[in-house]
Amino acid sequence: MRIPNHIGIIPDGNRRWAVKNGMTKEKGYNMGLKPGLELFKLCEKEGINEITYYGFTTDNTKRPKFQRVAFTQACIDAVKMLSKENASLFIVGNTESPMFPRELIPYTIKRQTFGNGKTKINFLVNYGWQWDLNDCFASNEKDKNMMDLIRSREISRIDLIIRWGGRRRLSGFLPLQSVYSDLYIIDEYWPEFTPKHFYNALEWYDKQDITLGG
Amino acid sequence: MRIPNHIGIIPDGNRRWAVKNGMTKEKGYNMGLKPGLELFKLCEKEGINEITYYGFTTDNTKRPKFQRVAFTQACIDAVKMLSKENASLFIVGNTESPMFPRELIPYTIKRQTFGNGKTKINFLVNYGWQWDLNDCFASNEKDKNMMDLIRSREISRIDLIIRWGGRRRLSGFLPLQSVYSDLYIIDEYWPEFTPKHFYNALEWYDKQDITLGG
Repeated sequence: MRIPNHIGIIPDGNRRWAVKNGMTKEKGYNMGLKPGLELFKLCEKEGINEITYYGFTTDNTKRPKFQRVAFTQACIDAVKMLSKENASLFIVGNTESPMFPRELIPYTIKRQTFGNGKTKINFLVNYGWQWDLNDCFASNEKDKNMMDLIRSREISRIDLIIRWGGRRRLSGFLPLQSVYSDLYIIDEYWPEFTPKHFYNALEWYDKQDITLGG
Repeated sequence: MRIPNHIGIIPDGNRRWAVKNGMTKEKGYNMGLKPGLELFKLCEKEGINEITYYGFTTDNTKRPKFQRVAFTQACIDAVKMLSKENASLFIVGNTESPMFPRELIPYTIKRQTFGNGKTKINFLVNYGWQWDLNDCFASNEKDKNMMDLIRSREISRIDLIIRWGGRRRLSGFLPLQSVYSDLYIIDEYWPEFTPKHFYNALEWYDKQDITLGG
């Protein structure tokens, strides 16, 4: 089986899950922690080298405060949780804004290694696609490749993006690393994660041809 | 029904269609002309304001010469064909390369209006996503918005992308205009186009919520 090197995760549908289960919207985010760990362990088992989780965006922070507090806390808790695994953790996001949680700043400066550090994990926290790309265009190093100038330059090309919650779009998720990504959509909400979702995505990916535009 | 303002078309599967029908691969491209016109007329009827067709990319030109000649000719013929409609035509692509067909250069300089010019049509011809974005980063106009500096700046944000041929990826199609696009995949090959594909895509799009990252 052809295993992707790098998987992008769009864990969508937390709020819709909460509403469906008779809770207020912000209650959904916390339910995404367990799936995040479970998915990490499956990736580790299958030998996937790099995982990028879509945490929250600068646009998301315009939502009601209750929600903002809840998804920010869920990201902090997710990083804490994953720092108990064999992983190296890196965070990309706008740290100049008060919306960026202070606790996570060290992860934006350098990749932090835990255990044997084998699996690379990237987290997008207070990320914005325009913020990501603006740097390349403010740069004076005209001889450099664009991919070496964007703010997310530590994050490699993504082979497979798995999105929960049924929406078939990228929603600003790393536009340059996603130009050739295969996009697998799961209709269930992220808190409803099961290993079957992950294996269905891998089986589907195995059947895709890879041309990288050729 | 909520009609998209701007539809992106990825007319994939021409070569696979040819092989399936016992022809050599390059014979498939010409079969994409009739669908292209039919789709335009449907868009016109439904009041869609802007359509962008993915012609060919700089990467595609590395394919065998027979294929390159065939898809280039198909693009030239498509533009000729659409210039008989009520449309305004604009082409984005790298004209500095010998792979760019000379006949189409006027369309890259300014939008050409035919009939009442009502529907905007954009064609990507010898397009490359890195080529598109590199300009923004070579620019010295640091105060300008990135979207006003990319080479495809004439092309607006895309609401709905319809891709034929079953692949669930963007393949470098206007990465910045596509960040929020909904992606509708049709398993049939582009030469197998039927109006039902288009209407299924519109019906599906009507049911999507539009958040633009919010």
